[in-house]
Amino acid sequence: MRKLKLSRAFALVESGPVVLVATSDGDRNNIMTISWTMVLDFTPTFAMATGEWNYSFAALMKTRECVIAIPTVDMLDKVVGIGTCSGKDTDKFAAFGLTPVPGKHVDAPLIKECYANIECRVSDFVKKHSIVVLDAVAAYTDPARKEKRTIHAVGDGTFIVDGRRLDRRKMMGSKIPSCV
Amino acid sequence: MRKLKLSRAFALVESGPVVLVATSDGDRNNIMTISWTMVLDFTPTFAMATGEWNYSFAALMKTRECVIAIPTVDMLDKVVGIGTCSGKDTDKFAAFGLTPVPGKHVDAPLIKECYANIECRVSDFVKKHSIVVLDAVAAYTDPARKEKRTIHAVGDGTFIVDGRRLDRRKMMGSKIPSCV
Repeated sequence: MRKLKLSRAFALVESGPVVLVATSDGDRNNIMTISWTMVLDFTPTFAMATGEWNYSFAALMKTRECVIAIPTVDMLDKVVGIGTCSGKDTDKFAAFGLTPVPGKHVDAPLIKECYANIECRVSDFVKKHSIVVLDAVAAYTDPARKEKRTIHAVGDGTFIVDGRRLDRRKMMGSKIPSCV
Repeated sequence: MRKLKLSRAFALVESGPVVLVATSDGDRNNIMTISWTMVLDFTPTFAMATGEWNYSFAALMKTRECVIAIPTVDMLDKVVGIGTCSGKDTDKFAAFGLTPVPGKHVDAPLIKECYANIECRVSDFVKKHSIVVLDAVAAYTDPARKEKRTIHAVGDGTFIVDGRRLDRRKMMGSKIPSCV
């Protein structure tokens, strides 16, 4: 994994891919599959909708740390598998053949097999709407990885794979954040 | 446009497409391009990150209404154009050849040329994080439309087009919300 300029990390989440969120409660690692995320700021700050209905939520609130890992289409069955069992009774790293890598800034593990990983700290929890606010503190990508297409949940059990990429950099001009 | 069951409308935003947000300040219609959205609940409730840096924000806060319209890839140049000029000095419906259609529940206009439209009411504004919380009150799609591929902003002036759709409904099983 190669360190990514932190100011470019928002782009990993901007397009709305399904992400894996890794936590550690100090004793055990866990992973959840999350589709409900958005960028809040280029710094980057992220919002994520989660709550007590996710087993990982307790560890997230206790440690106020997590890793957002970006899986690609070749990992779809793992992503769905992780989203349909619970860390309460499953060691998901073992069950899905994933490798935890120690974070530099947080105790939550990075996921080696993912295309990208973002170490995050919980800066706030907006209880009224169950929105967790995350500040990224470090980001990494795996430049050797050939498969970079992410997946987007539709919400009905189907998933859209990244297709073509269209370039509108000239049109965007000054609207492209200076950090990218 | 055909009415869509409201409980299925979350799926229009779940995959993270770039959306157009239409408002009316009572006098003039306006549109902004937004990539920072997420689903908060299946009802559906949406979160959208915006603030005073968007000209539409004043109308949004004043009327507490908007329409989330879902454009498709054939509309990319309009979407980028809308995102790179301001309603302060541009009538965006006229400038981009779009047709406002009166909403049934809100005074903000639907955008006829879009694949889908969701009439929304602002239920809250989380000032600390500039998050607008929206409750959908009606949703529509255009079933006659052939092009249904949405676009996902990467944040660097490039856009990912929807590619293949993969079906994991069997694997998802009970995790698919009963509403879809």
